[in-house]
Amino acid sequence: MKNLSLGIDLGGTKILGIVVDEKYKIISNDKVKTKYRLSPEEICRQMKGIADSALSNAGASWNDVKNIGIAVPASIDPATGDGLHAPALGWKDLPIKQTLEDVFGRKIFLENDVNCGTYAEFKLGAGKGFKNVVGYFVGTGLGGGVVIDGKLLRGTRGVAGELGHEVVKMDGRACGCGKNGCIEAYCSKTAFGKQFDKQIRKKKRSSIITKYYEGDFTRLKSKAFAKAFAAGDEVTMEILEDGFKALGIAASNIATILAPECIVLGGGVVEGVGEGVLPFFQKSFDENLFALKPGDIAIRLSKLGDDAVPLGAIFNAVAKGKI
Amino acid sequence: MKNLSLGIDLGGTKILGIVVDEKYKIISNDKVKTKYRLSPEEICRQMKGIADSALSNAGASWNDVKNIGIAVPASIDPATGDGLHAPALGWKDLPIKQTLEDVFGRKIFLENDVNCGTYAEFKLGAGKGFKNVVGYFVGTGLGGGVVIDGKLLRGTRGVAGELGHEVVKMDGRACGCGKNGCIEAYCSKTAFGKQFDKQIRKKKRSSIITKYYEGDFTRLKSKAFAKAFAAGDEVTMEILEDGFKALGIAASNIATILAPECIVLGGGVVEGVGEGVLPFFQKSFDENLFALKPGDIAIRLSKLGDDAVPLGAIFNAVAKGKI
Repeated sequence: MKNLSLGIDLGGTKILGIVVDEKYKIISNDKVKTKYRLSPEEICRQMKGIADSALSNAGASWNDVKNIGIAVPASIDPATGDGLHAPALGWKDLPIKQTLEDVFGRKIFLENDVNCGTYAEFKLGAGKGFKNVVGYFVGTGLGGGVVIDGKLLRGTRGVAGELGHEVVKMDGRACGCGKNGCIEAYCSKTAFGKQFDKQIRKKKRSSIITKYYEGDFTRLKSKAFAKAFAAGDEVTMEILEDGFKALGIAASNIATILAPECIVLGGGVVEGVGEGVLPFFQKSFDENLFALKPGDIAIRLSKLGDDAVPLGAIFNAVAKGKI
Repeated sequence: MKNLSLGIDLGGTKILGIVVDEKYKIISNDKVKTKYRLSPEEICRQMKGIADSALSNAGASWNDVKNIGIAVPASIDPATGDGLHAPALGWKDLPIKQTLEDVFGRKIFLENDVNCGTYAEFKLGAGKGFKNVVGYFVGTGLGGGVVIDGKLLRGTRGVAGELGHEVVKMDGRACGCGKNGCIEAYCSKTAFGKQFDKQIRKKKRSSIITKYYEGDFTRLKSKAFAKAFAAGDEVTMEILEDGFKALGIAASNIATILAPECIVLGGGVVEGVGEGVLPFFQKSFDENLFALKPGDIAIRLSKLGDDAVPLGAIFNAVAKGKI
């Protein structure tokens, strides 16, 4: 085998590695839980381990690897191609590129994880065929990315596309980032968890989601939302409705500011619950459009699942950090 | 004279025409009140009249004119280069390009007025030297424009950059557009006028601004704000503080989404009051940044005044509608 590319998604909970051929077809993958208590150097070695085993699963060797792209939960400074800070991992202002290149013994390209996910959906997934695509990924937090005219928008210090921290309600709910009224405080697993806590623990309402409760509603897994929603659980429906209505307004702001051709919704909760979230989202999105008609902007569920992020990292590596 | 360009700003209250040389130096101008009760055809002839007199003031003739750019208070569809709707003039879905070309007997290029203003500030004014610039223009309404990588962002159906209709407060104040919580409902002359009405007429507070009252606070001129602010009028200070604090949050959203290098503040109120609005704006902007430090994004007052819009229209005509 030759001209393979390796993509790694370093997440707060897991590390996923994939190997693709020249046509971006996935040949193999492997994943492991992120040992986030380890030092950055040790996590880099964990990533190397996943890369080794993904290559081995593909029956390939390092000699076959042409490009290495790594996606991290951090802003990447376009000036240096290096990380700025990664709150999900507790890293702050930590350069990591050199450590990674030392561990891998190769040139690597870093990019923000949700930027990678958005770009991959634009190239191969739900946003394929459009030139201007915005992605929202509803997970523990709310991530996003912006592709304009076929290029990833990086902005000053590489922080463009931090869509979870757009304020949709001045003086609104406290967000984990310290601001008030960010959309992440309305539409993310963390936000939903707080609402479950309020409804179930404080208001004593009953909900099937308690089957999946492990001492902290804000740590509910996406599957729990999916199962409770599928069962028609009233509290779950209400909470997701409120959250995705708010996301519809945030996305209508994106429509008003950028008027992209397509908005992709993804992330664990969206992939788990599936099309069920769309009516909530679409109604408030349509009602809050300005100078656009419903349907002018395509709303699509993500298609690439967990592969989106490492695939985007590969696209970035192939383009030498210039997607 | 040769290779002159003509730029016209068709506004809801006035029509401004300018003539520039090849280096975009303004040679002459003329303006007239918009007779908005006239038919679109008659307004096109009014525009031709201003063009004639601006040229005559320059001692030039139509043979000297190489490019004609016209800025209108309307979305321009990039597919056709024609207008979609112009609420400020009461026009809806009215093609106007052909009428203008018939009246002028020449090829003309149309573009949205605040898009033109933002682009001109980017090329020659407060945003010069940056590649990614966003403009806010506080007038009767709140307009905006987005320049990314040196190009005007038009988006689907040309409606990108409608920054006044970004929702900053879900379920917030009613906006003239029919939505709730748009930033225009917090920071525009119309919004300020409603607050003056509340404070003065309903709460019986006294304010120097009543000197400029002509039966409707929402029709106060920018000069009235400037004079009342300069006099240290308490009600005026409070209202502008609230408005520009809200605008700071809206602009911090732009920073979070696009992370431009520079945000330009302009429009009648900003130009009238001047630097006095900056502290209100800057404080809430800085407090609501995400992953950026105060100073990472330059905040500048507009430099080109009324000339920004027709200058931008000229840049667009020179680039054959492709700025």
